[in-house]
Amino acid sequence: MRIAVLGGTGDEGLGLAMRFADAGHEIVIGSRSRERAEAAAEQVRAAATGAKASSAENAAAALTADIVFVSVPYAAQRPTLEPLKATLAGKVVVTVVVPLSFGKGGPQAETVPEGSAALEAQAILCSSRVASAFHNLSAHELQRLDQPVDCDVIVCGVDRETRQTVIDLAASIPGVRGIDGGPLSYSRYVEDLTALLLALNRRYKTETGIRITGLPVPIPA
Amino acid sequence: MRIAVLGGTGDEGLGLAMRFADAGHEIVIGSRSRERAEAAAEQVRAAATGAKASSAENAAAALTADIVFVSVPYAAQRPTLEPLKATLAGKVVVTVVVPLSFGKGGPQAETVPEGSAALEAQAILCSSRVASAFHNLSAHELQRLDQPVDCDVIVCGVDRETRQTVIDLAASIPGVRGIDGGPLSYSRYVEDLTALLLALNRRYKTETGIRITGLPVPIPA
Repeated sequence: MRIAVLGGTGDEGLGLAMRFADAGHEIVIGSRSRERAEAAAEQVRAAATGAKASSAENAAAALTADIVFVSVPYAAQRPTLEPLKATLAGKVVVTVVVPLSFGKGGPQAETVPEGSAALEAQAILCSSRVASAFHNLSAHELQRLDQPVDCDVIVCGVDRETRQTVIDLAASIPGVRGIDGGPLSYSRYVEDLTALLLALNRRYKTETGIRITGLPVPIPA
Repeated sequence: MRIAVLGGTGDEGLGLAMRFADAGHEIVIGSRSRERAEAAAEQVRAAATGAKASSAENAAAALTADIVFVSVPYAAQRPTLEPLKATLAGKVVVTVVVPLSFGKGGPQAETVPEGSAALEAQAILCSSRVASAFHNLSAHELQRLDQPVDCDVIVCGVDRETRQTVIDLAASIPGVRGIDGGPLSYSRYVEDLTALLLALNRRYKTETGIRITGLPVPIPA
């Protein structure tokens, strides 16, 4: 599978790119800057033995990919996606975006007019198959390829088939379980939870994640 | 410790009352109806060997307790708390309330003008020490006293001392870890998460809970 990671130069996008490359997928790092994209692709190739990782500007990266990840700050999601509407039509687009603010009281989730970053992405990309996942994974844990990641990935998405594609991809990261979180209207709970986890990280000086308890083993598809 | 559970006739409140009675605390079940309160207290005494559980109308239950739990439907939180403002002054009040709606698309978190049920409770009870916790525990698991509960309890509250009191209480339930979730502004993430867990319960036909991964062991106070 050929996976583009738009915003793949950021910590979280880079970590996801490394893990997917490590799982044998072909990666294209996308960025507004061709140079920064290539520097990140070089980091992916250095981290994962035999990694197939190239780089491109966002539009070119999106064009050739089967699945497109969006891992940019919230404020950049709309400007990144709007020009790619036609390019992304029919593709699975996974937004990792969390609307956050960092004020005096600590990290907090920001209100999004559409209800969540995922619903905003779907409103922009009405012809794409939008999913939302991977918000709660620590970027640093993702980049430590020698260790499994102790976190579940709750996947929301427009339809069951789209969610299952992303659930399978999540499960390709050692330690991670992909869980069907339902339609995109449920994404805000998963996005918002990130603010709580970041606050816990500060309080307990660690990198937190979440597990859902009580699920059947194995989790039925 | 003498604990009142207002709305202790509901499934969740009853489960909490059983667990706290089982941990050796003295329980007063509060309800609008003296008869229903007594029936629930009888269930607590039947479930937990040696349980000290009595019953009273809400106001009387609140009056004599050291800690007061509020476990009522969201619509009943304000009418329950407003008349008790003076009675609850200076006490630790723990709201378990989750603002939920159950529409065609499944359970969803409702928007609260104050930002969350916990912030609403604090706005009403400005002289109480309000905390918010226990939203994500399955009522059925709570009531099965022969089994530990596989869930963390994230505790938000007005100050550190109040949170620590509730964290210690949470940890008195076998299997449960109490985690410091910070000020009440963080409660909405924990409250809202309940909607996602209820949706997962339906999808996977189970009772889900959450664990926070990556915390130090033991969790520092």
